[in-house]
Amino acid sequence: MYKCNESRLKDSIIMFSRIGATAKGGVTRLSLSQEDVEARDLFYECCRELGMTIQVDDMANMYATLPGKSNLPPIVMGSHLDSVVKGGRFDGVLGVLTALEAVRTIVDNNIELDIPLTIVNFTNEEGARFEPSMMSSGVLSNKFDKTKMLQSTDKDGITFEHALKESGYEGSEENRLKEALAYLELHIEQGPVLEAERLDIGVVEGVLGMVCYEITVTGESNHAGTTPMKMRNDPLFLATKLINNLIEALGSVDEELVYTIGRMNVTPNIHTVIPNKVVFTLEARHKDPIKINRVEEILHSLPLQQEGCHIKKEKLWGRDTVVFEASLCDQIEQACKGYGYSYKRLYSGAGHDAQFIASYIPSAMIFVPSINGKSHCEEEETTYEACVKGADVLLETVLNLQAKFSIQEALI
Amino acid sequence: MYKCNESRLKDSIIMFSRIGATAKGGVTRLSLSQEDVEARDLFYECCRELGMTIQVDDMANMYATLPGKSNLPPIVMGSHLDSVVKGGRFDGVLGVLTALEAVRTIVDNNIELDIPLTIVNFTNEEGARFEPSMMSSGVLSNKFDKTKMLQSTDKDGITFEHALKESGYEGSEENRLKEALAYLELHIEQGPVLEAERLDIGVVEGVLGMVCYEITVTGESNHAGTTPMKMRNDPLFLATKLINNLIEALGSVDEELVYTIGRMNVTPNIHTVIPNKVVFTLEARHKDPIKINRVEEILHSLPLQQEGCHIKKEKLWGRDTVVFEASLCDQIEQACKGYGYSYKRLYSGAGHDAQFIASYIPSAMIFVPSINGKSHCEEEETTYEACVKGADVLLETVLNLQAKFSIQEALI
Repeated sequence: MYKCNESRLKDSIIMFSRIGATAKGGVTRLSLSQEDVEARDLFYECCRELGMTIQVDDMANMYATLPGKSNLPPIVMGSHLDSVVKGGRFDGVLGVLTALEAVRTIVDNNIELDIPLTIVNFTNEEGARFEPSMMSSGVLSNKFDKTKMLQSTDKDGITFEHALKESGYEGSEENRLKEALAYLELHIEQGPVLEAERLDIGVVEGVLGMVCYEITVTGESNHAGTTPMKMRNDPLFLATKLINNLIEALGSVDEELVYTIGRMNVTPNIHTVIPNKVVFTLEARHKDPIKINRVEEILHSLPLQQEGCHIKKEKLWGRDTVVFEASLCDQIEQACKGYGYSYKRLYSGAGHDAQFIASYIPSAMIFVPSINGKSHCEEEETTYEACVKGADVLLETVLNLQAKFSIQEALI
Repeated sequence: MYKCNESRLKDSIIMFSRIGATAKGGVTRLSLSQEDVEARDLFYECCRELGMTIQVDDMANMYATLPGKSNLPPIVMGSHLDSVVKGGRFDGVLGVLTALEAVRTIVDNNIELDIPLTIVNFTNEEGARFEPSMMSSGVLSNKFDKTKMLQSTDKDGITFEHALKESGYEGSEENRLKEALAYLELHIEQGPVLEAERLDIGVVEGVLGMVCYEITVTGESNHAGTTPMKMRNDPLFLATKLINNLIEALGSVDEELVYTIGRMNVTPNIHTVIPNKVVFTLEARHKDPIKINRVEEILHSLPLQQEGCHIKKEKLWGRDTVVFEASLCDQIEQACKGYGYSYKRLYSGAGHDAQFIASYIPSAMIFVPSINGKSHCEEEETTYEACVKGADVLLETVLNLQAKFSIQEALI
């Protein structure tokens, strides 16, 4: 079994982390910003040095391909180079750099490929500058309408279309990722499970389905000093009671269910005034759609009126669980076993480009541990040892797929 | 018994409500603004027409005095002409205009006074432009330091000192209200009790003591999708649990206790991120300091740590209960009985200038009903019939005090 080079991978990570570096060790590399373009240029240069052919499509997705002897569609690896504001040094970029490390190891070892190997950098995965997130994989998989995406605007009023043209990375639609034998995306876990269970690798079987609701409790504002308790219609007191009931009910759905009240706004939010409105979100994720349905039943069982207040529920959005290609997960698992790396199969709670690509290309993901489960912040951290273990597994999986697909082709 | 003139009082209220009138029937008459100055000018003119002497002190408090035959200190009535932004047509101004109506009735009926009668307009009761509220009565009663008050700044950076000079109403310190036989302030209730109990008059025995705490619950932000429930330190889930416990505990303190969570802020307040901080205020009011102590005990019994979160309690401020002069309350009650107006004795949950003046002049207040308990908003409403009943009680109380103090003087 081949092994990737930890020291070289570390150097790559450090080199890319200098582009858009923040004071506290993170990066700000918003999609199609000057920093993103600089990272793209560096990625381009690294791939060119390896003799790869680089193409760019109309969404500025970059594809660097190492040719194979056959005419089969490629095996694709990759992720994204963009980040959120004050994000970490690993989210996204690690999937591109471990793929680069895998290709470097292949080239170093003069491994001849039957199947072409492509590294992809998806544009605007984060959606931090231009909403929505996973924009370009969404366009590739017909989840999003390109015309609408072009009109997405950043906080300074610049459209995605304008930023695309300015970047110099607007390519041709004919270069879009259409067909591939497999798509493999390595990513940091962005959660605490692998670290807590002292595991090297997460074999990602899919992405959790989710729903997000907004609950509005409307009451009546009055003077905090002059209104007796019995004459109040206080939406905050009611909201906290409803939330406690929700937490209790959701807690009994399934131990794997995750649910979060992340946003809560009180109006008018003055300490001497009884609020007249409380709005909060509740989002929940689970791989089993029956559990998600149960969450929605619990939300719909909220009363319409209580204690003089009105309660309104609105579904902001939801997404179905995406199940990755089982045979790819098996291959990843085999690679872990081969290296003696500890692993577990799990679902991703976060969204990734792979969940869209999976709709038309067999896909799977490889997770490496996030220290303290942190991501989308400057404290985001993964050891270089953990990174290179991920690169090893990616490399081995790709080589095994090469062999498998070559045999299949030979049999045809 | 003399009766005030409802039609004339109504005209006065309407005339003053045109100054700073808002689109939806309220007023914006911020302290020392152009609108406030216009209202002062009109008040000045009304008093001058009645033959009153008008003096202004160094805080721009206005004193219009109808002379009496004796050299005794005056009986003082009044309130304030300033309002909050989009406030109502009654808050404050009604206390000045009912006093004016009382004086007009005295003049109409050629009632000879032994004791001088002064109408006061206190500057900046609301604190809506320059904090704190009840600024000038606070300076008169040595609760606030004038030098600090002069530096109070509005949202445009203008100091109170500058606004004072610009207003043309900066008078002399020697004109300050120093000595008086009594201070009587009529005000709208700003609460729903009188209306709900179909009562004409509130005989205000004092102002409720209060405390205001800020509670900060600190946890840890993490990705809402990737962090299992058992690995979270979610301050919002804990805060709602603590609030529910607080509500339950406070509910058993005393049925007259009022308590409010008016302000609550969640950080970072993003629906896909577990919050790391929740800050909320809890304020409570009661006339009995023992009950307020009990509230503080309940707050201090909150744990310092729970469910991986830290809990911090900070007392923002508190004020002791102010008890008004019992003999004045008796006089007001007698007047109600005389007219056959229904009444109840109660405490004010809101703050008023009278609570500061009470520290050196025997004081009491008269409440008239607020429709739907609304105040500090354009919907603030009191019927003219209710207003004139208040004016009657104010007039009768003043005349009875005149008689009482005259007899006392004669006996000396």
